[in-house]
Amino acid sequence: MEQFTFSPEAAFVPRDDKLDRVTVAPLTPPISERSPFQAAVFRIAPGGRIGPSTATMPQIFAVLEGQGDVTGEDGVNTRIVAGDAVLLTPGEDHEATSASGLTVLIIEGDGLDRFRQHPTSPAA
Amino acid sequence: MEQFTFSPEAAFVPRDDKLDRVTVAPLTPPISERSPFQAAVFRIAPGGRIGPSTATMPQIFAVLEGQGDVTGEDGVNTRIVAGDAVLLTPGEDHEATSASGLTVLIIEGDGLDRFRQHPTSPAA
Repeated sequence: MEQFTFSPEAAFVPRDDKLDRVTVAPLTPPISERSPFQAAVFRIAPGGRIGPSTATMPQIFAVLEGQGDVTGEDGVNTRIVAGDAVLLTPGEDHEATSASGLTVLIIEGDGLDRFRQHPTSPAA
Repeated sequence: MEQFTFSPEAAFVPRDDKLDRVTVAPLTPPISERSPFQAAVFRIAPGGRIGPSTATMPQIFAVLEGQGDVTGEDGVNTRIVAGDAVLLTPGEDHEATSASGLTVLIIEGDGLDRFRQHPTSPAA
């Protein structure tokens, strides 16, 4: 058992034009370092932004705290609050903003899907 | 872009002897349904418990809210609070309890590791 931290104090500020007023606290190594998938907690300060960017693989965006807006390819703003999640599929353009601050878990990986309450049977 | 929820209202109470006063809100399908990895938010009510159980694959246990204690094979209690995470390796016995309530993200999957601030170079 190995303890570590993803607290705000442990988070770093990535050099990334697509992130404005955002800190990142990874839970896993990045896929670029041969992790089979990646998970990290992104904290958007008030007025901050993630994106616009294009999902390269399936992504779950799960709001842990606060609220904000996520905009997909259709340009429609969707208000998201703690307990809301969004599944993005590869190729989807998206952007997330928050006027008041937002903490979000982002999980990415090949073969990722969202949970569905009543899954259909696998194809024979 | 597909919206869904992992709010307390959407969580279910699993039939599982190893869970006492715990609800589960999955983010992904379970590995048993051919998901390459699984992630879910477990909410332990005050006095509740996860385990004791044995990790069958690497597992990250990341505390989102509240506090509790996790006990590994050595029987030592470790106090964990929001922002703390624990990596469990396959075969490790563990148990988590909370007197006051705890919300934890559990991610499991083959090849899962924890993030390390200064990763060593991959072996040549």
